[in-house]
Amino acid sequence: MTITPETIFKDIQAIRQHAPLVHNITNFVVMNNTANALLALGASPVMAHAQPEVADMAGIAGALVINIGTLSDPWIDAMFTAAQAASDKPIPMVLDPVGAGATPYRTRTAKNLMQRFQPGIIRGNGSEIMALGDQNAVTKGVDSASGADLAVDTAVSLSREHGSVVCITGETDYIIQHDKVAPIRNGHAMMPRVTGLGCTASALCGAFAAVNPDLFQAAAHAMAVMGIAGEMAGAEAFGPGSFQVRFLDALYRMSDSDIQERFKG
Amino acid sequence: MTITPETIFKDIQAIRQHAPLVHNITNFVVMNNTANALLALGASPVMAHAQPEVADMAGIAGALVINIGTLSDPWIDAMFTAAQAASDKPIPMVLDPVGAGATPYRTRTAKNLMQRFQPGIIRGNGSEIMALGDQNAVTKGVDSASGADLAVDTAVSLSREHGSVVCITGETDYIIQHDKVAPIRNGHAMMPRVTGLGCTASALCGAFAAVNPDLFQAAAHAMAVMGIAGEMAGAEAFGPGSFQVRFLDALYRMSDSDIQERFKG
Amino acid sequence: MTITPETIFKDIQAIRQHAPLVHNITNFVVMNNTANALLALGASPVMAHAQPEVADMAGIAGALVINIGTLSDPWIDAMFTAAQAASDKPIPMVLDPVGAGATPYRTRTAKNLMQRFQPGIIRGNGSEIMALGDQNAVTKGVDSASGADLAVDTAVSLSREHGSVVCITGETDYIIQHDKVAPIRNGHAMMPRVTGLGCTASALCGAFAAVNPDLFQAAAHAMAVMGIAGEMAGAEAFGPGSFQVRFLDALYRMSDSDIQERFKG
Repeated sequence: MTITPETIFKDIQAIRQHAPLVHNITNFVVMNNTANALLALGASPVMAHAQPEVADMAGIAGALVINIGTLSDPWIDAMFTAAQAASDKPIPMVLDPVGAGATPYRTRTAKNLMQRFQPGIIRGNGSEIMALGDQNAVTKGVDSASGADLAVDTAVSLSREHGSVVCITGETDYIIQHDKVAPIRNGHAMMPRVTGLGCTASALCGAFAAVNPDLFQAAAHAMAVMGIAGEMAGAEAFGPGSFQVRFLDALYRMSDSDIQERFKG
Repeated sequence: MTITPETIFKDIQAIRQHAPLVHNITNFVVMNNTANALLALGASPVMAHAQPEVADMAGIAGALVINIGTLSDPWIDAMFTAAQAASDKPIPMVLDPVGAGATPYRTRTAKNLMQRFQPGIIRGNGSEIMALGDQNAVTKGVDSASGADLAVDTAVSLSREHGSVVCITGETDYIIQHDKVAPIRNGHAMMPRVTGLGCTASALCGAFAAVNPDLFQAAAHAMAVMGIAGEMAGAEAFGPGSFQVRFLDALYRMSDSDIQERFKG
Repeated sequence: MTITPETIFKDIQAIRQHAPLVHNITNFVVMNNTANALLALGASPVMAHAQPEVADMAGIAGALVINIGTLSDPWIDAMFTAAQAASDKPIPMVLDPVGAGATPYRTRTAKNLMQRFQPGIIRGNGSEIMALGDQNAVTKGVDSASGADLAVDTAVSLSREHGSVVCITGETDYIIQHDKVAPIRNGHAMMPRVTGLGCTASALCGAFAAVNPDLFQAAAHAMAVMGIAGEMAGAEAFGPGSFQVRFLDALYRMSDSDIQERFKG
């Protein structure tokens, strides 16, 4: 259960070798980024959201990622159908409660999915995780108004209640399973200035969960890879435009030694 | 009401300091660009389009941007609900009539929104503005077939009738409030070769309107920033791919002196 | 009917001069890329998917591209309506059967569109083309599990039965019309690591079909331009992020001599 550069790179190699199919039901804003991040890492993304096919698609996938960033009723129905198929098979499911706390519609949907399917991994920012735990955090649209550290207690409770690994991202990321808390201190200040990097983090959780049955390790590896790619990109970026380009390049090129040099668990 | 480098930069600083939440109901093609441009500038974007949550989201936002670029009936319903919430609160509303004139469906929807809600700012290309004024312009899909200058008279009429600031973008941009016309001469020839920069212009109008109650100034500042960022990007671009990257970098980096050197009102 | 650097560049010049309107009903993941690739090449893209306007939009377009990458029932209805309008006018129609073979929903929809409208061009990867021909290929999500060469026989049968030009993309691309087979050997190993380049290939088929009534030539020219732009991008890319940027730049800058130097038919 320890997180080391070696365990991280071993999972990356497994993803590059097996190219696991990750089924995403995600939001319109980030579909392209998410797919590109999964491809750059070595996984095989597919996006499918129609009621008549989501169970079939989840049935051939290695992981299911559900992201509520641009919700509507038909999509919610499909999320439940896909989650049921993932649960039946079973394959790991990642829930990204984008904007939970910002509107009752999002909070309710995220909580319903969490309560009914007990997702393997839940990843959100501080505000979103606090909203899932009925804490009165303020979610400003889809940006967090609470630091990740303020949400740790809520995450511990959620993890105990639902058995999920809960992953809070922020300046320091926290990966939580029951009482166990792993901080990941990688990352770059420009990451919040690029839309959907949180969503990308959740998608990468899906890729790691597809090759590593220990979901605590899988989530921690995903966060470490996000943070390290962010540092590699940030070192050469002039702003959030060039950052995005170099972030994808970094996911593609990340080597054993990049991880050795940069990992801060 | 004068537009100067100082008034432009003052608003940029306000956006960077307060990170106003801009609620977008926009098209699938540009959601990612729009969100990234708002983040690069310093604003906080959120996309939400479902009937059950748009009023809640508009209720916590600083501005609402409605863009009809990929319409369908459920989205139109949500646009009306969100516009009503924005009008009730009130927060400024920006209307982008993408492709008005190309199909009756788009022309009708844009006119209905304009007539019912009297948007604070309307931004379109020459063809779209002329279509709103029942002029027989030809809109070729979503690209303008009429120069911005040909639409100035129509824009003056629309502004008088609806009280809106009307913003026509083209080689020269025109910002119009009743009889007042401010031209902005910044920009770069590569801008029409990148999809959705018009939509980005409308989204930036939302960010400026959220920090500046003078909507004439807000719209003019947004157009100046678009044009200046375009010039900064164009100076270093090899084509529309690298242009996009550098455009986001320029929004993020734009300084007082960049504006001083380049602004052409 | 021969494909030469001269015939390729002649079509590019026609696209740059006439900027044909290409109506796309395509998937959420690639809409932005597709629009940007068409603009970079010199065409004028429009995305419209609502039942009330698709016939109007197809009616003013030079080509229709239907891509089933993120299907749902209302979109399928609109695809049939638009295809009927394209067939009535007539303008050429390109079908991209994304993920055919992965779920019955996709396979059925793609086959229904093919059988009812006999598309001018069908473009897919090896697995997708085999699925259209009822061959038992395995489509892994939206990535091909079969080489393009294995699908040539199926493509010949499909072309004979439906009169379509069938285009199979892979390491070597094959353009097939009845018994005629043209291989295109351009391309770069990084292309499968960028999402939606297959969808871009289909969109470019639409642009070339809008200026060249010989659809065999049009499809072959589109594949050659994709491959050459891929080589130009790959020569300067550090990973799939910078590849994408340079790919758009290459479409924009591609000259007669770039094609002369690189074309491998």
